[in-house]
Amino acid sequence: MRNPDTQAGSIGRRLFLRGAALAAAAPILTEAHFARAADAPVKGGMALHGQGIDLPPADAVLINANENPLGPCKAACEAIANIAPMGGRYDLFGETAKLKATFAMQHGLKESHVEVYAGSSEPLHYSVLAFTSPTRSFVTADPSYEAGMVAAQTTKARIVKVPLTKDYAHDLKAMVAADPNAGVIYVCNPNNPTGTVTAKADILWALDNKPAGSILLVDEAYIHLSDAQDVLDMVAADKDLIVLRTFSKIYGMAGIRCGLAAGRPDLLAKLQPFGQNAMPITGSTAARMSLLDETLVPNRKKLIGDTRRDTVAWLKANRYNVYGDPQTNCMMIETGHVGASVIKAMKAKNVWIGRTWPIWPTAVRISVGTPEEMAKFKIAFKAVMDDHALAAAKGAPLTAVAAGAQTQFPQLS
Amino acid sequence: MRNPDTQAGSIGRRLFLRGAALAAAAPILTEAHFARAADAPVKGGMALHGQGIDLPPADAVLINANENPLGPCKAACEAIANIAPMGGRYDLFGETAKLKATFAMQHGLKESHVEVYAGSSEPLHYSVLAFTSPTRSFVTADPSYEAGMVAAQTTKARIVKVPLTKDYAHDLKAMVAADPNAGVIYVCNPNNPTGTVTAKADILWALDNKPAGSILLVDEAYIHLSDAQDVLDMVAADKDLIVLRTFSKIYGMAGIRCGLAAGRPDLLAKLQPFGQNAMPITGSTAARMSLLDETLVPNRKKLIGDTRRDTVAWLKANRYNVYGDPQTNCMMIETGHVGASVIKAMKAKNVWIGRTWPIWPTAVRISVGTPEEMAKFKIAFKAVMDDHALAAAKGAPLTAVAAGAQTQFPQLS
Repeated sequence: MRNPDTQAGSIGRRLFLRGAALAAAAPILTEAHFARAADAPVKGGMALHGQGIDLPPADAVLINANENPLGPCKAACEAIANIAPMGGRYDLFGETAKLKATFAMQHGLKESHVEVYAGSSEPLHYSVLAFTSPTRSFVTADPSYEAGMVAAQTTKARIVKVPLTKDYAHDLKAMVAADPNAGVIYVCNPNNPTGTVTAKADILWALDNKPAGSILLVDEAYIHLSDAQDVLDMVAADKDLIVLRTFSKIYGMAGIRCGLAAGRPDLLAKLQPFGQNAMPITGSTAARMSLLDETLVPNRKKLIGDTRRDTVAWLKANRYNVYGDPQTNCMMIETGHVGASVIKAMKAKNVWIGRTWPIWPTAVRISVGTPEEMAKFKIAFKAVMDDHALAAAKGAPLTAVAAGAQTQFPQLS
Repeated sequence: MRNPDTQAGSIGRRLFLRGAALAAAAPILTEAHFARAADAPVKGGMALHGQGIDLPPADAVLINANENPLGPCKAACEAIANIAPMGGRYDLFGETAKLKATFAMQHGLKESHVEVYAGSSEPLHYSVLAFTSPTRSFVTADPSYEAGMVAAQTTKARIVKVPLTKDYAHDLKAMVAADPNAGVIYVCNPNNPTGTVTAKADILWALDNKPAGSILLVDEAYIHLSDAQDVLDMVAADKDLIVLRTFSKIYGMAGIRCGLAAGRPDLLAKLQPFGQNAMPITGSTAARMSLLDETLVPNRKKLIGDTRRDTVAWLKANRYNVYGDPQTNCMMIETGHVGASVIKAMKAKNVWIGRTWPIWPTAVRISVGTPEEMAKFKIAFKAVMDDHALAAAKGAPLTAVAAGAQTQFPQLS
């Protein structure tokens, strides 16, 4: 099935830049940007900061952006409130340096192997800028998180999309073989949007067998929600990889902004030229308090995991297909109908679900919300699927909206 | 005195990039980065996030980074505390869009003419990236804020430094005439480090007479602290300029992170490709509450202004020379000695003052702190100056440390 050349050409057309000003570069995009673009693909175009986008109703179920409705932990919220009055100074107490030291200590890393950013979108973007080029490609799983592909537009890198295995893991053998001139091999583990896990042994094999001069970019945004094994020990071993972590997922800090890149100092140094704005001290202090809260990860992993397991069980009991064995706060559901049509019908019922991916235009991503939110999701989803089945049975041309079925990248067509 | 070509060559040498990885780009730098680099020029090199930098003692007087010791206003701190628990979502309530709408409404601008960033360092950097090139130069006053010159290294633009007038205003006639191929003419009003003001009439003249294809980049970071007239009406009139605003100065939010760029939509669009990370909602909500606090600007302008006037009066009464008529929270003091030596001696007395500029290596910048901080500054400064005068009278070779007198740019030699 895999045909890197054809796929690169295909994505190349899809990613064709809109507007001359963007010929050289594409912006840093977060999960929120992709979610919003899917919500309102025709309004405004950019909408990077919400203009032209209707805010959801207060009672809307928002399971469209892999957010964590639990928010930051209590200690993080208190730390934010306590440090705010000191915000007249850039970082008086060295909060960002303290965060770096805490993360490094907890993971057996040297501080020189860690850099802090306002989320992981920046180091993801910068890693692609630094390590891909017209002659060094960007290799990604398909479906997987799209931000790296957008960044690869900036460097005019070839984009090679390699389908997931039959178990919906990254096909690292195929990804390593995909291009002898790969610059970045992007591994999102667990994977967004499927929530499926790739074995550490496969990642280690890829590290040992990848093309010379390439790096592995291992996005561990969702790792705490799963039993997947991280690869920070490979950073400590000075291998050719950069590991991304964010406080936006299990730590519930998407709106607070904090993330990390871990890698050999010479690799991290290649990211610095692209941007390293001063950190919001609110983000740095909240992240450190989150790391120091020993109950946060196990408690939330269980809470969100229980809700995910219940949701998957309900879907299967109702004969809806889920792709693979999702282990995080998101999953892909096969609807058998044009995804965009299902998304629209769900929104009409006040349940905002996630987007589709071009490779599976009839599947939709949902995030795992609270048990109450998922109860509302179940009711709405069953109603929408029954409606669609009825319409299909009557011969309604559901595929007629296929042209609108693919997620539109912000600024990209 | 002015000789753009020679000066460009000179700064070109000074700005020669250290490290091959930086050949293509320099990082986004804030006032904090420059202040820290001056504090610890030999340690660590980057120190963008504090590693290798000793934190100041708790009782240190910190008047080295043009910070506002008052911090965010009460309403802003409360808003930060209140929104923190909702931080699990990217920007659920559209805080950033609301900030944009509030700023636009207050200043008679369309929302399309405003973009929000995590401080003004990002749009300053991106404006230089977007509008300068090897054939389109960066024209700046001298001395002035250095970040734009660092950004111009990325685009390999010629840097043209034009000395301030005898009144320490921007010499806009000379700046406009400096290069018919200018890309950006950077006007910092009031100016950092001198705190001196440039007349609006001169800026309007420059707008009408600047080289075709260039923009004015008007940095109004410090404008609320002065009586200088802003030029946002020129943005509303769709002229060729971008105006930068920050919440780091009078609003006391340097560590919270929020800033704005105002300009024609087609000009702002040229900034977007370089980066537009999701905003910390703490920054957006605090900035909006600050704009809505009608007493903040007049009260703080008077408070900081009174302290500044007292400090200047004391300096003059003690026969220390201040450059021009500073109108913000910073000023340049002529010491008659190598600036680095004065800075070091002040730090030994627990008073951290600002840096020097190459054009005036015997002048040091100080920021305006609280009355209590400035009382400590006065005692320390008189003692240091008396020591230096005594040493000079004994023929001590104070100029022997001249090689270390110039501020080192982070990453730049």
